[in-house]
Amino acid sequence: MTVKIAIKLIKKILKERLKESPAILREHSVNEAHFEEFLPDAVAYVNSAEEVSEIAKICSSHECPITAWGTGTSLEGHSLAVRGGIVLNMGNMNKVFSISTEDMDVIVQPGLTREELNKELKTTGLFFSVDPGANASIGGMAATRASGTTTLRYGSMRENVLALQVVLADGRIIRTGSRARKSSAGYDLTKLLVGSEGTLGIITELTLRLHAQPDSISAAICSFPDIESAVQTVISTIQMAIPMARMEFVDDSTIIACNQYFGSEMLPRPHLFMEFHGTKQSVQEQAKTVKEIATSYEGSDFVWSLKAEERSHLWNSRHKAFWAIKNKYPDHNAMATDVCVPISKLAEIITQTHDDIKKTNIPGPLLGHVGDGNFHATLLIRNGNKEDLETSMKLADNMAKRALLLGGTVTGEHGIGMGKIKYMEIEHGEAWDVMTDIKRILDPNGILNPGKLVKTN
Amino acid sequence: MTVKIAIKLIKKILKERLKESPAILREHSVNEAHFEEFLPDAVAYVNSAEEVSEIAKICSSHECPITAWGTGTSLEGHSLAVRGGIVLNMGNMNKVFSISTEDMDVIVQPGLTREELNKELKTTGLFFSVDPGANASIGGMAATRASGTTTLRYGSMRENVLALQVVLADGRIIRTGSRARKSSAGYDLTKLLVGSEGTLGIITELTLRLHAQPDSISAAICSFPDIESAVQTVISTIQMAIPMARMEFVDDSTIIACNQYFGSEMLPRPHLFMEFHGTKQSVQEQAKTVKEIATSYEGSDFVWSLKAEERSHLWNSRHKAFWAIKNKYPDHNAMATDVCVPISKLAEIITQTHDDIKKTNIPGPLLGHVGDGNFHATLLIRNGNKEDLETSMKLADNMAKRALLLGGTVTGEHGIGMGKIKYMEIEHGEAWDVMTDIKRILDPNGILNPGKLVKTN
Repeated sequence: MTVKIAIKLIKKILKERLKESPAILREHSVNEAHFEEFLPDAVAYVNSAEEVSEIAKICSSHECPITAWGTGTSLEGHSLAVRGGIVLNMGNMNKVFSISTEDMDVIVQPGLTREELNKELKTTGLFFSVDPGANASIGGMAATRASGTTTLRYGSMRENVLALQVVLADGRIIRTGSRARKSSAGYDLTKLLVGSEGTLGIITELTLRLHAQPDSISAAICSFPDIESAVQTVISTIQMAIPMARMEFVDDSTIIACNQYFGSEMLPRPHLFMEFHGTKQSVQEQAKTVKEIATSYEGSDFVWSLKAEERSHLWNSRHKAFWAIKNKYPDHNAMATDVCVPISKLAEIITQTHDDIKKTNIPGPLLGHVGDGNFHATLLIRNGNKEDLETSMKLADNMAKRALLLGGTVTGEHGIGMGKIKYMEIEHGEAWDVMTDIKRILDPNGILNPGKLVKTN
Repeated sequence: MTVKIAIKLIKKILKERLKESPAILREHSVNEAHFEEFLPDAVAYVNSAEEVSEIAKICSSHECPITAWGTGTSLEGHSLAVRGGIVLNMGNMNKVFSISTEDMDVIVQPGLTREELNKELKTTGLFFSVDPGANASIGGMAATRASGTTTLRYGSMRENVLALQVVLADGRIIRTGSRARKSSAGYDLTKLLVGSEGTLGIITELTLRLHAQPDSISAAICSFPDIESAVQTVISTIQMAIPMARMEFVDDSTIIACNQYFGSEMLPRPHLFMEFHGTKQSVQEQAKTVKEIATSYEGSDFVWSLKAEERSHLWNSRHKAFWAIKNKYPDHNAMATDVCVPISKLAEIITQTHDDIKKTNIPGPLLGHVGDGNFHATLLIRNGNKEDLETSMKLADNMAKRALLLGGTVTGEHGIGMGKIKYMEIEHGEAWDVMTDIKRILDPNGILNPGKLVKTN
């Protein structure tokens, strides 16, 4: 078999860093999601772009699939080797090459996680802003075009990746973009590769934009009588161009789960979690204006967190809400949905989704990065219960199709992977063919992460 | 000849909107730059995407080049039909389809100019931010990935185009992106097409991001003893994360030309032109901090413009500096250079460029969007003087190569067109081959704007 030959050849290069033990294969066979197990044929712990290039050449010749693996935290099965072959574990490639405080950028390897990066940056006065909750790898975040709570103010991976080094299917090592903040020099390959989910190339180095740690930070939570009021507060705030750093919606069920998990005592009502960055004066001004807007929509019970530890406690609840929910439903599997709509449609789709879920027996707490028009339902499926799975699939399908009808997208930040490939044609029409054409020319043998994102892969 | 056949077939569709008169052809044979004249075979005044699609199908079958034309203001010869064929004049396609104040976006046709768009938006409290100086068409600005004085705060066309309708070489009409503010649904074709200079498709509709008109605006100019001090002020300001709306460098020669042209009395020293947007309080705070920074670098003679008309007068000088310079050198042709570097390298490259120019007899005033690391020299070539042209080409070449050595790009905002194609291989290496591969798969007959941006076109 050709995959076997490829593995043999790769073994010669990597030696003991090419693993075939069942335990390692199993470790790389599932993501944090509801997908079945897909065992790769081997796992390659690569150390350099040159090694990735050699592996790509071998795999190209022998039509052996290559799937890159960061931390396995993707939610749509991106890093599952659905057609077997080699999984490239990027964990060894986790260096920070250079931090420029003057230019506010950093050059890193893809296996570094975002928390590791921010630890490295701690004393510089700068931080890396993209924050998807999970401690994902930077390479995986770029490949998924990840975003998170601070995207509202600082952008997603789309805005924060300045340049890439990428290994193509045929082993060529290319560089895209530069450290300049803007350029009109040709096709924006960096932006094409960010979000390409390992189907066009393997990211081996990233130049990232950093942001200055704000002088002053203030966080607040606030509760509302209903979803509509909370979301209207968000819409008005965005329309007043208040430069919010974070603006998160958390529904009553999520609050209840968090109270249980963290021992907090938030009112069991829809909440907004907010954060303001700026100078001391501007933070005060922003907070005052948003409080006025929220109050006009019957927002109440403001709790302000000015101290770093209070804030980190507050955001811990938001970030770990997924785990709080999972804890509340111990014998359940979670399906995390993810749509994004123009902000004027947000109240409509959240309310409809909420009503939709209420009509079923599926618990489905709602939360999201509402300032971007992005939100999630966490649908809870009793382990092994096919009926629950079907009902959840139907709920997720309704959300996705509703988002498209409202001019939005089926995924704001989790990506397509294998889970949402069925919506690509509906969302993009013939533009999906164009994506597939690009895939075909750059990866004619379809070895890069087959079964994901594009049509014939 | 096949082009002749194509024109005959297009004539059947457009009738009198397909022009072949020498006067019209000549009108579409030169841009605002130093390139020679290229006469197209015909000019098609198109009215709709469907017409563009029909034309593309005909031109594909008959290998007839198609070059889109907005306002002819491009600086690298983008819209010149260097291999003849059809120029598509997009001027009739200048409608504003829908403005959403709630979602802060607008759907427009490509022939609309940015000034026309902002006129339409006047009463909405919103504005379209990208401002390249020239009253360019929105389609042309997207194709060039244009930016300008406000990019520092609000982004370039890269950040402000949300979605596109595009006609491909084979006539397919596709839609890319959506009105959602972010998405992880597949390859970012919108970002691939923005900056593709009409070589991958013809833009027939754009969804643009709008911004809220700030509550308060304040502008200031300030002079410095030397270039270094001015640029250091910029670097410190950016590093302090002050959300400047505009931060422009203008050298002493440009100031002298402006004084002459506008009758102003600015000191003949390097200047910064700045603008602050925000609430009244935050604008005051920003201005105070920047004044402190500037003063520490011996910046002096601050002039503040708080009233709208004063501000518009101030920015008029900056925007029309190119004309002020041209006015000062009436029998000269202007070559506008354009590089962008990481901001820490800005003082170095501006000083070196200034010294370089001083060593020649070419007048070359410097100005630029220094907050982005982007600047221009306007090199003045005596009409028909080959030696001047050669010296200028050499100066421009030094700038471009220096920018690359410093980790920058050969064009921050003017684009590649035909003028900078010679730098593509140096800037991108094998990534240029990837661009060419993408071009080849989407436009196998090479009919879309041949001779621009990619290798074999």
